[in-house]
Amino acid sequence: MASTALFPPQIEAHRKLIQDALLRYCDFDSGCPEHLAEAIRYCLLAPGKRIRPLLTLAASEVCDGDLSAAIPAACAVEMIHNYSLIHDDLPAMDDDELRRGRPTCHIQFDEAIAILAGDALIPMAFEAIARDVQPAEVALECSRLLAIASGPSKLVGGQADDLGCEFGAHDRVMLEKIHSRKTGALLTVSLEMGAVTARADEDQRHSLVEYGKHLGLAFQIVDDLLDFRGSQTKMGKRTGKDADRGKLTYPSVLGEAESETFLHEITEKAIASIQSFGDAAKPLELLARFVVSRTQ
Amino acid sequence: MASTALFPPQIEAHRKLIQDALLRYCDFDSGCPEHLAEAIRYCLLAPGKRIRPLLTLAASEVCDGDLSAAIPAACAVEMIHNYSLIHDDLPAMDDDELRRGRPTCHIQFDEAIAILAGDALIPMAFEAIARDVQPAEVALECSRLLAIASGPSKLVGGQADDLGCEFGAHDRVMLEKIHSRKTGALLTVSLEMGAVTARADEDQRHSLVEYGKHLGLAFQIVDDLLDFRGSQTKMGKRTGKDADRGKLTYPSVLGEAESETFLHEITEKAIASIQSFGDAAKPLELLARFVVSRTQ
Repeated sequence: MASTALFPPQIEAHRKLIQDALLRYCDFDSGCPEHLAEAIRYCLLAPGKRIRPLLTLAASEVCDGDLSAAIPAACAVEMIHNYSLIHDDLPAMDDDELRRGRPTCHIQFDEAIAILAGDALIPMAFEAIARDVQPAEVALECSRLLAIASGPSKLVGGQADDLGCEFGAHDRVMLEKIHSRKTGALLTVSLEMGAVTARADEDQRHSLVEYGKHLGLAFQIVDDLLDFRGSQTKMGKRTGKDADRGKLTYPSVLGEAESETFLHEITEKAIASIQSFGDAAKPLELLARFVVSRTQ
Repeated sequence: MASTALFPPQIEAHRKLIQDALLRYCDFDSGCPEHLAEAIRYCLLAPGKRIRPLLTLAASEVCDGDLSAAIPAACAVEMIHNYSLIHDDLPAMDDDELRRGRPTCHIQFDEAIAILAGDALIPMAFEAIARDVQPAEVALECSRLLAIASGPSKLVGGQADDLGCEFGAHDRVMLEKIHSRKTGALLTVSLEMGAVTARADEDQRHSLVEYGKHLGLAFQIVDDLLDFRGSQTKMGKRTGKDADRGKLTYPSVLGEAESETFLHEITEKAIASIQSFGDAAKPLELLARFVVSRTQ
């Protein structure tokens, strides 16, 4: 399960903490059928960048928080992220067979187990918070924030609109509305939970949320650009697919060059949002630049 | 959305409180696509017996609890129950087209929306608890209990085994192992959350959990018997199906007559578990007898 270094040592150390904690959360009791446990581990422990939990730990650290309170929240957001990938890949949804260079969960196992593995990861996230984040008020606030971010008005609503169940107008407003929920909400809550576990003040929390909103948009533009350019190697999944389906993407709405320009603008905005933290904001700046570097 | 009276006035009054609260929880903001909101309401607000939330309120009342703390927890368990029905009915799972006499969610809408409606109901449950149960320690304990009950070792694990993904031996031990997780865990947590919101003592909580374990088993035997006898009218869904599929059921393992005997034994055990509450246990006794009466 070891993964190659992507970041400077300080961030890699956080990545290791996250990987170790996720491994512990996959230590199921005998009530969990082995087949289901295997599917959950296959997805949750797959080599990944761990951007969301890294943001939680970086946000906690920039607010002088104690990482031991932030780690369960970081794992919780990674569990929600992984469930959403498993379900988005299902035949009835995006119908993807490849994810991070490996067969998707329903291909590796079967569709029923993929649905159930996703279903299991959601309560696992809330259990991690309820059991391991302290004190109770902080845990409850994390639970509330994560529930909203992964609920019908955010993560799930964004995916429903992205599937084209509802919208008519293919424009920039709808595009941002989809991705502020589908991608942005989870990135923002990663940061906000880091702030909450660190008992950050309102100003700090606000700066991190602003950073998260911009970063979420940047993240989606990068994904769309990679898909548009068909760089299967970098994506580890089938590309050019969104365009084939007539899906709403940044290159399809703004064009490639303007998407690039917008990406750089929005990344600078993200970094500007955290300048009040001074030098301590370096890891967050680095994570933002890493997100953008994936297109290059 | 009004439903006909099934119970004496006191329990019907609770049922009304639950229905009204569920209606409020379906008041989505503009981030939730209308199509998704409609699917969630179609399932969650469908006329139902509301056994699980009624158990939460009855458990709270028998421990002299304040119903206002129990209602959000009651709604949360009903949300989890409804998500599990939606996902269990999917083509990749039990492939059912009829539920409570109406088309199942993926038939009425489509498969993608059914997956998403189920996905949305899980965080909705945890949001209801985090936002509306007070104080924080009580809310957090409810959240922890509900997360475990709906997680990979309980609800989801039971469903995975029920789908036959894993087990080989078709025997009574496996049958009880499946249903103590698939049906029992959610019934038990309904009662336990009622006790927790009422700040019940350990003895009270233990009695209610024992009652819940027996009731969960009784519940499943009734369902299996109804399916076995093919009483489509009472079930509002296609019957005889579990047997056709060679699924593990009580009548298939114990025979019809012995299942009946076991059902009555287990119901009496459920009722005996709550005798320490004296006359106050009447509503819980009535709910247990109601569960059994469905076979007659």
